[in-house]
Amino acid sequence: MKYARFRDPAGAVRRGTVHGETVYFGGQEYDFDEVQVLPPCEPSKIVCIGRNYAAHAAEMGNDVPDRPLLFLKPPNTLAGHGDTITAPADTERLEVEAELGVVISEQCRNVDEADAMDVVAGYTCVDDVSNRDDQRQEQNWVRGKAFDGAAPIGPVLATPDEVPADAGVRSYVDGEPAQAGSLDQLIFPVPELVAEITSYLTLEPGDVIATGTPEGVTPLSEGDEVAIEIDGIGRLEHSVRWP
Amino acid sequence: MKYARFRDPAGAVRRGTVHGETVYFGGQEYDFDEVQVLPPCEPSKIVCIGRNYAAHAAEMGNDVPDRPLLFLKPPNTLAGHGDTITAPADTERLEVEAELGVVISEQCRNVDEADAMDVVAGYTCVDDVSNRDDQRQEQNWVRGKAFDGAAPIGPVLATPDEVPADAGVRSYVDGEPAQAGSLDQLIFPVPELVAEITSYLTLEPGDVIATGTPEGVTPLSEGDEVAIEIDGIGRLEHSVRWP
Repeated sequence: MKYARFRDPAGAVRRGTVHGETVYFGGQEYDFDEVQVLPPCEPSKIVCIGRNYAAHAAEMGNDVPDRPLLFLKPPNTLAGHGDTITAPADTERLEVEAELGVVISEQCRNVDEADAMDVVAGYTCVDDVSNRDDQRQEQNWVRGKAFDGAAPIGPVLATPDEVPADAGVRSYVDGEPAQAGSLDQLIFPVPELVAEITSYLTLEPGDVIATGTPEGVTPLSEGDEVAIEIDGIGRLEHSVRWP
Repeated sequence: MKYARFRDPAGAVRRGTVHGETVYFGGQEYDFDEVQVLPPCEPSKIVCIGRNYAAHAAEMGNDVPDRPLLFLKPPNTLAGHGDTITAPADTERLEVEAELGVVISEQCRNVDEADAMDVVAGYTCVDDVSNRDDQRQEQNWVRGKAFDGAAPIGPVLATPDEVPADAGVRSYVDGEPAQAGSLDQLIFPVPELVAEITSYLTLEPGDVIATGTPEGVTPLSEGDEVAIEIDGIGRLEHSVRWP
Protein backbone atom coordinates (compact mmCIF):
# COMPACT_ATOMS: atom_id res chain seq x y z
CA MET A 1 0.00 0.00 0.00
CA LYS A 2 1.08 3.57 -0.64
CA TYR A 3 -0.06 6.62 1.29
CA ALA A 4 0.24 10.33 0.52
CA ARG A 5 -0.39 13.41 2.68
CA PHE A 6 -1.81 16.21 0.58
CA ARG A 7 -4.00 19.31 0.60
CA ASP A 8 -7.40 18.72 -0.92
CA PRO A 9 -9.01 21.48 -3.03
CA ALA A 10 -10.49 23.04 0.15
CA GLY A 11 -7.00 23.32 1.64
CA ALA A 12 -7.56 20.57 4.24
CA VAL A 13 -4.64 18.26 4.99
CA ARG A 14 -5.58 14.64 4.22
CA ARG A 15 -3.84 11.27 4.17
CA GLY A 16 -5.04 9.14 1.32
CA THR A 17 -4.12 5.90 -0.39
CA VAL A 18 -2.38 6.05 -3.75
CA HIS A 19 -3.12 3.71 -6.65
CA GLY A 20 -1.35 4.56 -9.87
CA GLU A 21 -1.84 8.29 -10.48
CA THR A 22 -4.87 8.64 -8.19
CA VAL A 23 -5.18 9.51 -4.50
CA TYR A 24 -8.24 8.27 -2.59
CA PHE A 25 -9.64 9.74 0.62
CA GLY A 26 -13.10 9.75 2.16
CA GLY A 27 -14.88 8.43 -0.90
CA GLN A 28 -13.29 11.06 -3.14
CA GLU A 29 -10.51 10.67 -5.64
CA TYR A 30 -7.92 13.16 -6.83
CA ASP A 31 -5.35 13.24 -9.59
CA PHE A 32 -1.97 12.92 -7.86
CA ASP A 33 -0.50 15.61 -10.13
CA GLU A 34 -3.25 18.08 -9.24
CA VAL A 35 -3.03 18.09 -5.44
CA GLN A 36 -0.34 19.74 -3.33
CA VAL A 37 1.65 16.78 -2.07
CA LEU A 38 3.05 17.22 1.47
CA PRO A 39 5.81 15.27 3.18
CA PRO A 40 4.28 11.85 3.91
CA CYS A 41 4.89 12.17 7.67
CA GLU A 42 5.64 14.83 10.30
CA PRO A 43 8.92 13.88 11.94
CA SER A 44 10.02 15.40 15.25
CA LYS A 45 13.52 14.57 13.99
CA ILE A 46 15.27 12.90 11.08
CA VAL A 47 18.15 10.70 12.19
CA CYS A 48 20.58 10.40 9.29
CA ILE A 49 23.31 7.89 8.57
CA GLY A 50 26.60 8.87 6.95
CA ARG A 51 28.88 6.59 4.94
CA ASN A 52 26.49 3.64 4.75
CA TYR A 53 27.49 2.64 1.18
CA ALA A 54 31.14 1.65 0.73
CA ALA A 55 31.46 3.24 -2.72
CA HIS A 56 30.16 6.61 -1.43
CA ALA A 57 32.50 6.57 1.58
CA ALA A 58 35.36 5.97 -0.87
CA GLU A 59 34.34 8.78 -3.27
CA MET A 60 34.32 11.20 -0.30
CA GLY A 61 37.77 9.98 0.80
CA ASN A 62 36.46 8.30 3.97
CA ASP A 63 36.79 4.86 5.50
CA VAL A 64 33.73 2.75 6.19
CA PRO A 65 32.74 3.32 9.85
CA ASP A 66 32.60 0.46 12.33
CA ARG A 67 29.43 1.91 13.93
CA PRO A 68 26.73 3.85 12.06
CA LEU A 69 27.75 7.51 11.69
CA LEU A 70 24.74 9.46 13.00
CA PHE A 71 23.69 13.06 12.39
CA LEU A 72 20.44 15.01 12.75
CA LYS A 73 18.05 17.06 10.64
CA PRO A 74 15.40 18.97 12.64
CA PRO A 75 11.87 19.72 11.33
CA ASN A 76 12.95 23.01 9.71
CA THR A 77 14.71 20.91 7.04
CA LEU A 78 11.49 19.37 5.69
CA ALA A 79 10.35 19.97 2.14
CA GLY A 80 7.91 18.06 -0.03
CA HIS A 81 7.44 16.70 -3.53
CA GLY A 82 7.29 19.54 -6.02
CA ASP A 83 8.84 22.12 -3.69
CA THR A 84 11.67 24.49 -4.50
CA ILE A 85 14.40 24.66 -1.90
CA THR A 86 16.77 27.58 -1.42
CA ALA A 87 20.49 27.13 -0.82
CA PRO A 88 21.96 28.89 2.23
CA ALA A 89 23.53 32.25 1.34
CA ASP A 90 27.11 32.02 0.05
CA THR A 91 26.89 28.29 -0.66
CA GLU A 92 28.91 27.25 -3.67
CA ARG A 93 28.76 23.49 -3.49
CA LEU A 94 25.29 22.08 -2.80
CA GLU A 95 24.93 18.36 -3.55
CA VAL A 96 22.15 15.82 -3.99
CA GLU A 97 22.12 12.66 -1.83
CA ALA A 98 19.42 10.10 -2.68
CA GLU A 99 18.42 7.99 0.33
CA LEU A 100 15.87 5.48 1.56
CA GLY A 101 13.85 7.04 4.38
CA VAL A 102 12.44 4.72 7.06
CA VAL A 103 9.24 6.08 8.64
CA ILE A 104 8.62 5.01 12.25
CA SER A 105 5.14 3.83 13.25
CA GLU A 106 5.17 4.04 17.04
CA GLN A 107 7.04 5.50 19.98
CA CYS A 108 9.90 3.12 20.69
CA ARG A 109 13.18 2.73 22.59
CA ASN A 110 15.66 -0.13 22.93
CA VAL A 111 14.22 -2.10 20.00
CA ASP A 112 15.97 -5.40 19.20
CA GLU A 113 17.07 -5.97 15.62
CA ALA A 114 14.71 -8.95 15.44
CA ASP A 115 11.72 -6.72 16.29
CA ALA A 116 12.78 -3.63 14.35
CA MET A 117 10.37 -4.08 11.44
CA ASP A 118 7.46 -3.95 13.93
CA VAL A 119 8.12 -0.22 14.40
CA VAL A 120 8.53 0.58 10.69
CA ALA A 121 5.43 2.10 9.03
CA GLY A 122 7.08 2.15 5.63
CA TYR A 123 9.60 3.74 3.34
CA THR A 124 9.93 6.99 1.45
CA CYS A 125 12.52 8.83 -0.67
CA VAL A 126 14.78 11.43 0.99
CA ASP A 127 17.17 13.92 -0.58
CA ASP A 128 19.82 14.57 2.08
CA VAL A 129 20.77 17.89 0.46
CA SER A 130 24.27 18.83 1.60
CA ASN A 131 26.07 22.17 1.73
CA ARG A 132 29.67 21.00 1.41
CA ASP A 133 31.25 24.45 1.95
CA ASP A 134 30.16 24.47 5.58
CA GLN A 135 30.01 20.71 6.17
CA ARG A 136 33.72 20.36 5.50
CA GLN A 137 34.55 22.95 8.17
CA GLU A 138 32.17 21.83 10.91
CA GLN A 139 32.54 19.43 13.83
CA ASN A 140 28.78 18.83 13.71
CA TRP A 141 27.03 19.11 10.34
CA VAL A 142 24.44 21.79 11.20
CA ARG A 143 25.14 24.52 8.63
CA GLY A 144 26.04 21.70 6.23
CA LYS A 145 22.99 19.46 6.66
CA ALA A 146 20.32 21.14 8.84
CA PHE A 147 19.52 24.33 6.90
CA ASP A 148 15.92 25.03 5.86
CA GLY A 149 14.85 22.72 3.04
CA ALA A 150 17.75 20.28 3.44
CA ALA A 151 15.38 17.30 3.62
CA PRO A 152 12.89 16.96 0.77
CA ILE A 153 10.94 13.72 1.43
CA GLY A 154 8.19 11.83 -0.37
CA PRO A 155 6.24 11.60 -2.53
CA VAL A 156 4.54 8.69 -0.70
CA LEU A 157 4.99 6.32 2.20
CA ALA A 158 5.16 2.77 0.80
CA THR A 159 4.66 -0.17 3.14
CA PRO A 160 7.73 -2.42 3.36
CA ASP A 161 6.15 -5.19 1.23
CA GLU A 162 6.16 -2.79 -1.76
CA VAL A 163 9.95 -2.36 -1.73
CA PRO A 164 12.27 -5.19 -2.86
CA ALA A 165 15.36 -5.96 -0.75
CA ASP A 166 17.57 -4.98 -3.70
CA ALA A 167 15.52 -1.93 -4.76
CA GLY A 168 17.47 0.58 -6.83
CA VAL A 169 18.18 4.02 -5.30
CA ARG A 170 18.84 6.65 -7.97
CA SER A 171 19.08 10.40 -8.37
CA TYR A 172 18.81 12.58 -11.46
CA VAL A 173 19.82 16.19 -11.94
CA ASP A 174 17.97 17.92 -14.79
CA GLY A 175 17.15 14.49 -16.17
CA GLU A 176 20.76 13.26 -16.21
CA PRO A 177 21.53 10.18 -14.08
CA ALA A 178 23.58 11.14 -11.01
CA GLN A 179 23.62 8.45 -8.32
CA ALA A 180 22.83 4.75 -8.56
CA GLY A 181 22.94 2.08 -5.89
CA SER A 182 20.70 -0.53 -4.32
CA LEU A 183 19.39 -1.26 -0.86
CA ASP A 184 21.30 -4.52 -0.59
CA GLN A 185 24.50 -2.42 -0.55
CA LEU A 186 23.67 -0.83 2.84
CA ILE A 187 26.56 -1.52 5.22
CA PHE A 188 24.20 -1.25 8.22
CA PRO A 189 20.74 -2.49 7.16
CA VAL A 190 17.49 -1.03 8.51
CA PRO A 191 17.03 -3.33 11.54
CA GLU A 192 20.57 -2.62 12.75
CA LEU A 193 19.98 1.13 12.39
CA VAL A 194 16.72 1.00 14.36
CA ALA A 195 18.41 -1.00 17.13
CA GLU A 196 21.46 1.26 17.32
CA ILE A 197 19.53 4.55 17.28
CA THR A 198 16.93 3.43 19.83
CA SER A 199 19.64 2.32 22.23
CA TYR A 200 20.19 6.10 22.74
CA LEU A 201 17.12 7.99 21.46
CA THR A 202 13.37 7.42 21.65
CA LEU A 203 11.84 7.50 18.17
CA GLU A 204 8.34 8.93 17.71
CA PRO A 205 5.62 8.06 15.17
CA GLY A 206 6.53 9.84 11.92
CA ASP A 207 10.23 10.13 12.75
CA VAL A 208 12.46 9.25 9.81
CA ILE A 209 15.77 7.43 9.53
CA ALA A 210 17.64 8.51 6.37
CA THR A 211 19.79 5.50 5.64
CA GLY A 212 22.72 6.98 3.71
CA THR A 213 23.49 7.62 0.08
CA PRO A 214 25.13 5.63 -2.74
CA GLU A 215 28.00 6.91 -4.85
CA GLY A 216 27.66 9.58 -7.47
CA VAL A 217 26.80 12.65 -5.38
CA THR A 218 26.51 15.54 -7.80
CA PRO A 219 26.72 19.33 -7.37
CA LEU A 220 23.60 21.39 -8.03
CA SER A 221 23.15 24.72 -9.81
CA GLU A 222 20.50 27.45 -9.88
CA GLY A 223 17.24 26.13 -11.29
CA ASP A 224 18.19 22.45 -11.31
CA GLU A 225 15.39 19.91 -11.21
CA VAL A 226 16.29 17.03 -8.89
CA ALA A 227 14.62 13.61 -8.82
CA ILE A 228 15.12 10.79 -6.30
CA GLU A 229 13.80 7.38 -7.36
CA ILE A 230 13.53 4.22 -5.32
CA ASP A 231 12.02 1.07 -6.81
CA GLY A 232 8.68 0.29 -5.19
CA ILE A 233 8.24 3.79 -3.75
CA GLY A 234 8.30 6.23 -6.66
CA ARG A 235 9.90 9.46 -7.70
CA LEU A 236 10.44 12.51 -5.45
CA GLU A 237 11.00 15.72 -7.41
CA HIS A 238 12.15 19.12 -6.21
CA SER A 239 14.02 22.07 -7.62
CA VAL A 240 16.79 24.26 -6.27
CA ARG A 241 17.39 28.00 -6.30
CA TRP A 242 19.95 30.34 -4.82
CA PRO A 243 18.91 33.31 -2.66
CA MET B 1 8.37 38.38 34.89
CA LYS B 2 8.83 34.63 35.33
CA TYR B 3 6.64 31.95 33.82
CA ALA B 4 6.36 28.23 34.58
CA ARG B 5 4.63 25.40 32.73
CA PHE B 6 3.21 22.91 35.18
CA ARG B 7 0.51 20.34 35.78
CA ASP B 8 -2.23 21.54 38.07
CA PRO B 9 -3.79 19.13 40.60
CA ALA B 10 -6.30 17.98 37.94
CA GLY B 11 -3.41 17.04 35.62
CA ALA B 12 -4.02 19.91 33.18
CA VAL B 13 -0.97 21.60 31.67
CA ARG B 14 -0.92 25.31 32.56
CA ARG B 15 1.41 28.25 32.07
CA GLY B 16 1.41 30.49 35.09
CA THR B 17 3.37 33.44 36.44
CA VAL B 18 5.81 32.84 39.26
CA HIS B 19 6.28 35.22 42.18
CA GLY B 20 8.58 33.94 44.90
CA GLU B 21 7.50 30.39 45.72
CA THR B 22 4.01 30.70 44.26
CA VAL B 23 2.62 29.99 40.76
CA TYR B 24 -0.49 31.89 39.64
CA PHE B 25 -2.89 30.83 36.89
CA GLY B 26 -6.57 31.58 36.25
CA GLY B 27 -7.22 33.17 39.64
CA GLN B 28 -5.71 30.21 41.48
CA GLU B 29 -2.40 29.94 43.21
CA TYR B 30 -0.15 26.94 43.79
CA ASP B 31 2.94 26.28 45.85
CA PHE B 32 5.79 25.93 43.33
CA ASP B 33 7.18 22.94 45.22
CA GLU B 34 3.86 21.12 45.11
CA VAL B 35 3.13 21.15 41.37
CA GLN B 36 4.83 19.06 38.71
CA VAL B 37 7.02 21.58 36.92
CA LEU B 38 7.41 20.94 33.16
CA PRO B 39 10.00 22.34 30.75
CA PRO B 40 9.05 26.02 30.33
CA CYS B 41 8.65 25.66 26.54
CA GLU B 42 8.19 22.97 23.89
CA PRO B 43 11.10 23.27 21.46
CA SER B 44 11.02 21.63 18.04
CA LYS B 45 14.81 21.70 18.37
CA ILE B 46 17.51 22.90 20.72
CA VAL B 47 20.43 24.51 18.89
CA CYS B 48 23.49 24.23 21.12
CA ILE B 49 26.76 26.11 21.08
CA GLY B 50 30.09 24.46 21.89
CA ARG B 51 33.21 26.16 23.22
CA ASN B 52 31.58 29.53 23.90
CA TYR B 53 33.61 30.22 27.07
CA ALA B 54 37.38 30.43 26.61
CA ALA B 55 38.19 28.70 29.92
CA HIS B 56 35.96 25.71 29.07
CA ALA B 57 37.44 25.35 25.59
CA ALA B 58 40.87 25.28 27.26
CA GLU B 59 39.92 22.68 29.90
CA MET B 60 38.70 20.38 27.08
CA GLY B 61 41.95 20.90 25.16
CA ASN B 62 40.29 22.90 22.36
CA ASP B 63 40.93 26.24 20.71
CA VAL B 64 38.29 28.95 20.72
CA PRO B 65 36.35 28.69 17.43
CA ASP B 66 36.18 31.59 14.97
CA ARG B 67 32.51 30.86 14.25
CA PRO B 68 29.99 29.48 16.76
CA LEU B 69 30.30 25.68 16.96
CA LEU B 70 26.73 24.40 16.48
CA PHE B 71 25.16 21.08 17.41
CA LEU B 72 21.58 19.84 17.91
CA LYS B 73 19.42 18.26 20.59
CA PRO B 74 16.03 16.99 19.34
CA PRO B 75 12.85 16.95 21.48
CA ASN B 76 13.61 13.46 22.87
CA THR B 77 16.34 15.07 24.97
CA LEU B 78 13.92 17.22 27.03
CA ALA B 79 13.60 16.77 30.78
CA GLY B 80 12.21 19.10 33.43
CA HIS B 81 12.89 20.43 36.90
CA GLY B 82 12.77 17.61 39.43
CA ASP B 83 13.13 14.84 36.86
CA THR B 84 15.53 11.91 37.01
CA ILE B 85 17.44 11.27 33.81
CA THR B 86 19.00 7.94 32.85
CA ALA B 87 22.47 7.63 31.35
CA PRO B 88 22.76 5.68 28.09
CA ALA B 89 23.78 2.05 28.65
CA ASP B 90 27.54 1.50 29.03
CA THR B 91 28.26 5.19 29.66
CA GLU B 92 31.12 5.69 32.07
CA ARG B 93 31.70 9.44 31.86
CA LEU B 94 28.52 11.54 31.99
CA GLU B 95 29.12 15.23 32.71
CA VAL B 96 27.11 18.27 33.76
CA GLU B 97 27.21 21.43 31.58
CA ALA B 98 25.37 24.48 32.99
CA GLU B 99 24.11 26.82 30.25
CA LEU B 100 21.91 29.82 29.63
CA GLY B 101 18.99 28.77 27.42
CA VAL B 102 17.48 31.40 25.10
CA VAL B 103 13.78 30.76 24.39
CA ILE B 104 12.53 32.01 21.01
CA SER B 105 9.22 33.90 20.86
CA GLU B 106 8.27 33.78 17.18
CA GLN B 107 9.05 32.05 13.90
CA CYS B 108 12.07 33.80 12.45
CA ARG B 109 14.82 33.59 9.82
CA ASN B 110 17.66 35.90 8.81
CA VAL B 111 17.41 38.03 11.94
CA ASP B 112 19.93 40.86 12.22
CA GLU B 113 21.96 41.13 15.42
CA ALA B 114 20.38 44.52 16.10
CA ASP B 115 16.88 42.97 16.04
CA ALA B 116 17.74 39.68 17.75
CA MET B 117 16.24 40.52 21.15
CA ASP B 118 12.85 41.06 19.44
CA VAL B 119 12.60 37.28 18.90
CA VAL B 120 13.73 36.32 22.43
CA ALA B 121 10.88 35.44 24.83
CA GLY B 122 13.28 34.96 27.72
CA TYR B 123 15.90 32.83 29.38
CA THR B 124 16.01 29.53 31.22
CA CYS B 125 18.60 27.17 32.68
CA VAL B 126 19.81 24.20 30.60
CA ASP B 127 21.95 21.25 31.61
CA ASP B 128 23.69 20.13 28.39
CA VAL B 129 24.30 16.64 29.82
CA SER B 130 27.15 15.04 27.88
CA ASN B 131 28.16 11.41 27.40
CA ARG B 132 31.87 11.81 26.82
CA ASP B 133 32.55 8.14 25.99
CA ASP B 134 30.63 8.43 22.74
CA GLN B 135 31.11 12.16 22.11
CA ARG B 136 34.86 11.70 21.84
CA GLN B 137 34.47 9.06 19.12
CA GLU B 138 31.79 10.73 17.00
CA GLN B 139 31.91 13.09 14.03
CA ASN B 140 28.49 14.45 15.04
CA TRP B 141 27.59 14.42 18.74
CA VAL B 142 24.38 12.35 18.61
CA ARG B 143 25.10 9.48 20.99
CA GLY B 144 27.12 11.98 23.04
CA LYS B 145 24.59 14.82 23.29
CA ALA B 146 21.18 13.77 21.87
CA PHE B 147 20.24 10.76 24.04
CA ASP B 148 16.94 10.79 25.95
CA GLY B 149 17.08 13.19 28.88
CA ALA B 150 20.23 15.00 27.72
CA ALA B 151 18.54 18.41 28.04
CA PRO B 152 16.95 19.17 31.41
CA ILE B 153 15.59 22.74 31.16
CA GLY B 154 13.82 25.10 33.53
CA PRO B 155 12.53 25.69 36.11
CA VAL B 156 11.06 28.93 34.67
CA LEU B 157 11.27 31.23 31.69
CA ALA B 158 12.50 34.63 32.91
CA THR B 159 12.05 37.67 30.67
CA PRO B 160 15.38 39.27 29.68
CA ASP B 161 14.96 42.22 32.05
CA GLU B 162 15.21 39.78 34.99
CA VAL B 163 18.70 38.61 34.06
CA PRO B 164 21.75 40.88 34.50
CA ALA B 165 24.33 41.05 31.69
CA ASP B 166 26.93 39.55 34.05
CA ALA B 167 24.63 36.98 35.65
CA GLY B 168 26.48 34.07 37.25
CA VAL B 169 26.07 30.60 35.68
CA ARG B 170 26.82 27.81 38.16
CA SER B 171 26.38 24.10 38.60
CA TYR B 172 26.43 21.94 41.72
CA VAL B 173 26.76 18.18 42.03
CA ASP B 174 25.36 16.81 45.30
CA GLY B 175 25.59 20.30 46.74
CA GLU B 176 29.28 20.78 45.89
CA PRO B 177 30.14 23.67 43.54
CA ALA B 178 31.13 22.39 40.08
CA GLN B 179 31.06 25.09 37.40
CA ALA B 180 31.12 28.86 37.73
CA GLY B 181 31.13 31.52 35.03
CA SER B 182 29.15 34.56 34.01
CA LEU B 183 27.21 35.63 30.95
CA ASP B 184 29.64 38.45 30.13
CA GLN B 185 32.24 35.73 29.37
CA LEU B 186 30.29 34.42 26.32
CA ILE B 187 32.59 34.57 23.30
CA PHE B 188 29.56 34.87 20.98
CA PRO B 189 26.79 36.76 22.81
CA VAL B 190 23.08 36.03 22.33
CA PRO B 191 22.37 38.45 19.43
CA GLU B 192 25.30 37.06 17.41
CA LEU B 193 24.06 33.50 18.00
CA VAL B 194 20.50 34.35 16.89
CA ALA B 195 21.84 36.04 13.75
CA GLU B 196 24.23 33.21 12.88
CA ILE B 197 21.75 30.36 13.47
CA THR B 198 18.90 32.07 11.61
CA SER B 199 21.10 32.65 8.59
CA TYR B 200 20.73 28.86 8.06
CA LEU B 201 17.75 27.61 10.10
CA THR B 202 14.26 28.94 10.81
CA LEU B 203 13.63 29.07 14.55
CA GLU B 204 10.14 28.37 15.89
CA PRO B 205 8.36 29.73 18.99
CA GLY B 206 9.64 27.71 21.96
CA ASP B 207 12.89 26.69 20.27
CA VAL B 208 15.91 27.02 22.55
CA ILE B 209 19.48 28.12 21.97
CA ALA B 210 21.80 26.61 24.60
CA THR B 211 24.63 29.10 24.71
CA GLY B 212 27.58 27.00 25.90
CA THR B 213 29.05 26.12 29.26
CA PRO B 214 31.71 27.67 31.52
CA GLU B 215 34.68 25.77 32.92
CA GLY B 216 34.46 23.17 35.63
CA VAL B 217 32.50 20.39 33.89
CA THR B 218 32.23 17.55 36.37
CA PRO B 219 31.56 13.84 36.00
CA LEU B 220 28.33 12.44 37.45
CA SER B 221 27.66 9.24 39.36
CA GLU B 222 24.62 7.08 40.17
CA GLY B 223 22.14 9.01 42.28
CA ASP B 224 23.80 12.42 41.97
CA GLU B 225 21.63 15.48 42.50
CA VAL B 226 22.50 18.17 39.96
CA ALA B 227 21.59 21.87 40.20
CA ILE B 228 22.04 24.58 37.58
CA GLU B 229 21.74 28.15 38.83
CA ILE B 230 21.63 31.36 36.84
CA ASP B 231 21.21 34.73 38.58
CA GLY B 232 17.80 36.20 37.80
CA ILE B 233 16.33 32.88 36.58
CA GLY B 234 16.58 30.43 39.45
CA ARG B 235 17.69 26.89 40.17
CA LEU B 236 17.05 23.87 37.93
CA GLU B 237 17.40 20.56 39.77
CA HIS B 238 17.50 17.03 38.42
CA SER B 239 19.01 13.73 39.41
CA VAL B 240 20.85 11.05 37.46
CA ARG B 241 20.68 7.28 37.44
CA TRP B 242 22.29 4.49 35.46
CA PRO B 243 20.15 1.86 33.70
